[in-house]
Amino acid sequence: MNQTTTTISVAELEQFCLTVLRQCGLNETDARITTDVLVTTDTFGVFTHGVKALRYYVRRLRAGGLRAAAVPQVVMEGPAWAVVDGQSAMGMVTSVFAMNTAIHKARTAGLAYVGVRNSCHFAAAGYYANLAAKADMIGMAMANDCPGMTVPGARKPVLGTNPIAFAIPTGKEHPVFLDIASSAVAGGKLRVAQAQGKSIPSNWLVDTEGMPTTDPFAYPHAGALLPFAGHKGYGFAVLIETLSALMTGAAVMAQVGSWMETDPTQPTSHGAAFLAFNIGAIMPIATFKQRMDKMIADIHQAPKAKNAERIYLPGEMEWENRRKALSQGLELPADVLDSLRILADDMGLKPAWLMN
Amino acid sequence: MNQTTTTISVAELEQFCLTVLRQCGLNETDARITTDVLVTTDTFGVFTHGVKALRYYVRRLRAGGLRAAAVPQVVMEGPAWAVVDGQSAMGMVTSVFAMNTAIHKARTAGLAYVGVRNSCHFAAAGYYANLAAKADMIGMAMANDCPGMTVPGARKPVLGTNPIAFAIPTGKEHPVFLDIASSAVAGGKLRVAQAQGKSIPSNWLVDTEGMPTTDPFAYPHAGALLPFAGHKGYGFAVLIETLSALMTGAAVMAQVGSWMETDPTQPTSHGAAFLAFNIGAIMPIATFKQRMDKMIADIHQAPKAKNAERIYLPGEMEWENRRKALSQGLELPADVLDSLRILADDMGLKPAWLMN
Repeated sequence: MNQTTTTISVAELEQFCLTVLRQCGLNETDARITTDVLVTTDTFGVFTHGVKALRYYVRRLRAGGLRAAAVPQVVMEGPAWAVVDGQSAMGMVTSVFAMNTAIHKARTAGLAYVGVRNSCHFAAAGYYANLAAKADMIGMAMANDCPGMTVPGARKPVLGTNPIAFAIPTGKEHPVFLDIASSAVAGGKLRVAQAQGKSIPSNWLVDTEGMPTTDPFAYPHAGALLPFAGHKGYGFAVLIETLSALMTGAAVMAQVGSWMETDPTQPTSHGAAFLAFNIGAIMPIATFKQRMDKMIADIHQAPKAKNAERIYLPGEMEWENRRKALSQGLELPADVLDSLRILADDMGLKPAWLMN
Repeated sequence: MNQTTTTISVAELEQFCLTVLRQCGLNETDARITTDVLVTTDTFGVFTHGVKALRYYVRRLRAGGLRAAAVPQVVMEGPAWAVVDGQSAMGMVTSVFAMNTAIHKARTAGLAYVGVRNSCHFAAAGYYANLAAKADMIGMAMANDCPGMTVPGARKPVLGTNPIAFAIPTGKEHPVFLDIASSAVAGGKLRVAQAQGKSIPSNWLVDTEGMPTTDPFAYPHAGALLPFAGHKGYGFAVLIETLSALMTGAAVMAQVGSWMETDPTQPTSHGAAFLAFNIGAIMPIATFKQRMDKMIADIHQAPKAKNAERIYLPGEMEWENRRKALSQGLELPADVLDSLRILADDMGLKPAWLMN
């Protein structure tokens, strides 16, 4: 593994993704949507959920488990809700379509829920929540996944590390947003501990007997991730599973395929759910934004803890990462570069920035 | 403080509450609603949020900060949403009205959001979420509160320990439900550690400098509670504040009065938010319940951790507590009895079970 980073422009990374996705048969619109989801996530500094994953999506596109030409469909709807069948299109394409459907319905209904079935891994939930915030709405996005997380009393993975995100528009500031897994930490943090040979806190992982362990090497095959805050993360994972899968007809828990490991000729049948709250239906949007800016200022100005220089709002660090990436370029970590090299090699692509 | 418990029937406790609330001027309906919220919460074993709090509500009712005769009003509405002004009625009365409004609107719209302003402490969020589950809907309930919790980088309370609950109907089982604070633990757990002279985990509390402390006596006046799972609980508290208060016109953060400590002649101006998802609009309810029962069975049957006898679904322990309370009586802890004695004395009531 190459341990050095490489800094490239956001445009370079976008071009690479677009080229790959066009080559896989995606039309221009879908290639751009997918690229924007992945590269935006990298600019937030969330490298675990950006272009690093592209080669796994490509593998499924080539094998047929993901269908490049599929068009997600609204299969049922009411004034304030819809169910979208992803038709095994790219999870990003289906998810953007579903959130845009929720935003559209919320314009007249005040709020809307759109559930999704026959989707796949959708990358970072925060991207979709932010689509709603851009439309002056509060957005929520969530999805189920194949089991990777145990629950209190169990010793094996039971539920996915089901992610949930929200985003809230503001006046002078970027949207406030949070994008988290139901597990205490993402698997990526375990890999970092493994690489550094460090032990981990005892609330991250259980061993094969279901007992807490500080050994990071129990991940991923000799243990299971723990939910955040014990029964709290477990509960949220159940709620996310319900809104994303129980209610939409998507696969549930162990029936969901692994987007990385399951036979790539087969669909994974992920579910997802999107909510949009149209603030302007309820309160003048300018008033709401003033109220948000006041709350943000009050939080920023709270008395600091010893050694703390500033207090961040949820999402604020991610917006700073993005501003820096757009102005100074994206510093891609070694593991992302490794993944892109494998993909480029596989596709016969030779971008100069990846070849050194 | 009397250290012994007393076991009484659920009906006895209900009668006591009803008598107190009638004496405070509540009409029969509102007295019964409030009693049901508080006593149901005690039957779930959540004694921190049941009748123990009644004397603080009574204090505000007598002083005028809570208005016994107030009637909550829908002040704005659309097909899938409403804003309710609580008019400083009991928080329980306003919250039941608001959730019932959400359920009613969700019958036609598919889902509904009802935001609340001019309310007060609403006791346990789980009660309201379960109202929706009884109506075959997925319910969510949340509220803001006066600051009691700090945020990463701060050293003083910034946000309330904003609670959130959900409930999901099932077929053969009770609703799956979760009712949690945004803080790592409720203040009650700190009081237990204080009484037992035990140190606490370092992720519960910060001291006056904002540094993690294992000394439970820093609570409540020399420190602040920490959010659950760090930035995760912080993020949820911000989302709850937004849906409950920013969007409803309720008081925000430090503007919210303390239902226990602020001048009882003044309203506390709490906000709250309620969501109902009408499952039957989207999927035959029988199909949904079969899917839920299958998920529950799969979780129950997951391989157990060493020493674990069974795996509980969220809310399952609470339903067991309730079954036991209804059949064998409620075992009221000493701190609840102490609170009820003060109240009974104050009201000139002498229930036999409280007088020994």
